[in-house]
Amino acid sequence: VPPRTVGEVGEIDLVARIVEILAEGVPLSDAVKVGPGDDAAVVRCDGDVVLTSDSQHEDVHFRRAWIGARQLGRRAIAVNASDLGAMGSSPIGFLVALALPPDTELGWVEELAAGLREGAQRYGASVVGGDVAAVRERIAINVTAVGERHPDVTAGRDGARAGQRLFVSGWPGRAAAGLRLLQAGAPVSGAEAETCVRALLDPMPPVAFATAVAGRGLVGAMMDISDGVALDLGRLCRASRVGAQLDGSALIDDPLLASAAAGLGASPRELVLGGGEDYGLLCAVREGAEDEFHRLAEEHAVIVRAVGEVVAGDGITLSVDGRAEPLAASGWDHFA
Amino acid sequence: VPPRTVGEVGEIDLVARIVEILAEGVPLSDAVKVGPGDDAAVVRCDGDVVLTSDSQHEDVHFRRAWIGARQLGRRAIAVNASDLGAMGSSPIGFLVALALPPDTELGWVEELAAGLREGAQRYGASVVGGDVAAVRERIAINVTAVGERHPDVTAGRDGARAGQRLFVSGWPGRAAAGLRLLQAGAPVSGAEAETCVRALLDPMPPVAFATAVAGRGLVGAMMDISDGVALDLGRLCRASRVGAQLDGSALIDDPLLASAAAGLGASPRELVLGGGEDYGLLCAVREGAEDEFHRLAEEHAVIVRAVGEVVAGDGITLSVDGRAEPLAASGWDHFA
Repeated sequence: VPPRTVGEVGEIDLVARIVEILAEGVPLSDAVKVGPGDDAAVVRCDGDVVLTSDSQHEDVHFRRAWIGARQLGRRAIAVNASDLGAMGSSPIGFLVALALPPDTELGWVEELAAGLREGAQRYGASVVGGDVAAVRERIAINVTAVGERHPDVTAGRDGARAGQRLFVSGWPGRAAAGLRLLQAGAPVSGAEAETCVRALLDPMPPVAFATAVAGRGLVGAMMDISDGVALDLGRLCRASRVGAQLDGSALIDDPLLASAAAGLGASPRELVLGGGEDYGLLCAVREGAEDEFHRLAEEHAVIVRAVGEVVAGDGITLSVDGRAEPLAASGWDHFA
Repeated sequence: VPPRTVGEVGEIDLVARIVEILAEGVPLSDAVKVGPGDDAAVVRCDGDVVLTSDSQHEDVHFRRAWIGARQLGRRAIAVNASDLGAMGSSPIGFLVALALPPDTELGWVEELAAGLREGAQRYGASVVGGDVAAVRERIAINVTAVGERHPDVTAGRDGARAGQRLFVSGWPGRAAAGLRLLQAGAPVSGAEAETCVRALLDPMPPVAFATAVAGRGLVGAMMDISDGVALDLGRLCRASRVGAQLDGSALIDDPLLASAAAGLGASPRELVLGGGEDYGLLCAVREGAEDEFHRLAEEHAVIVRAVGEVVAGDGITLSVDGRAEPLAASGWDHFA
């Protein structure tokens, strides 16, 4: 018996099955007043509403040969949670719009739904609604995340000021190394390779840390790093009308990345600056707030590293071996 | 000089251009604390947050030969606003995720952005954020609408009770007639044909009326009609654990539809019951609330028609020429 496809199952039963999986073992949070199944979802919100939306398109953002459906579900949630965290907000709920070719296997969609549920559970949140559409080819998954934030909290890109030190969280560059490993087509083996591929496929953005940092007003500006440090720092600097000096050695202070890059014949610096899909944070920490910032990082088990400083002016310079040179805002252009 | 494509323009300039168009002549509402351009949007919300998401896929939900980019933008907003209205909520903001092949003309995207802006303006709302992705082929537009609602308001599908009369707003069936006209491929001419095609391409869901009706507690259950009256009434009845009796002649009391259907060789009843894309309301009005319901309809210039009654039990019957027969829950299955 061939596996059943979503075309055979039909829209009504497919949606019912997805809703069932999303609810398995997960009581809807008290904040959810109307969950999946009505015209729209209703959630209680104390404070301001924070909203972000991101799509994952097959053969553009993911390949089914590289990522399992469950991991893909978790990832589609995580990349949106990352944006909320960078605004100092944590998720209350997620909307998921699926576009599926009729020949998509039901089992694959069931695993995807389980991954979406697991991804949302990481934040004590749930999938509260969505939409399913039949398309001709190639799967697309759009996720909208909604969070709440105290009206006094700000964590935009526009508050960086000269003198603030720049920090990154996590290990930027590893996801880009993971992508190159998958693109090379060789089987992924060894702890280093597996770590890099996992950084790409199953990112764990530090949302609780980000909300704590923003809630205490420790950062002048904060954003998530999704398109490489160079492009994203350029965005932060433009929004804040400042420049930045990056410390080239601090930026690549990651032996695991160095080793993975060597295996790939790649430059660790290029992976950090021009890669993408890291979903860590880029923070301009207020002067005098660094001790508290480090304390919170430790409390949340998040790795943070000082990689430079905000300066007056409008360019980014990169110091390498004592020489400072201007940095081109290279990075990920989805249409390039 | 050939028209510029989004691939030539690149992601950064494309997003900047879209954001510029979205803001033209539209001051962001006071409710919008952070608009497009940061990691996420922030809107102020008094009450509960209402959320819905819907995608429009090229060659599935629209064809570029049939609908202009500006109209498509308005439509993508309207179908989401319709779902919010059916929950008794009006839009505060919209998130738009665009998937565009690199060869999409910039001018087309500019018109789409203008249409999105116009669509949001109808509700005093604006596009507060989104996402642009490059895909291989076929445009996709995902819109998420966020609205607010007083915590005491309910307007779900599950509150219909025996004895309540069923009303539809607008002219269900005309959009389905419009679709058949376009599918027939003949040039659309004549006031009737134009009205039906406009009903399909430029729906105007009665959001203000819906929120007024829900806010005053006039309806036991309410939903928008997007997949045909039969399928949607079936959903409402299942959610409310009731049955319904439909009046076959009231359902097709629309001379314009009758005439358009005759021209198509189609049955008006089938267009109303099994069509779709109407984006009017289906309401089970509380006993004693009908006068107030009619008064609000008049105040909002919305046409409403009684088409049947909620009954105990679990089936839908359709009375035609004095004979009542069971109604199959036919309607729009996107995977069928």
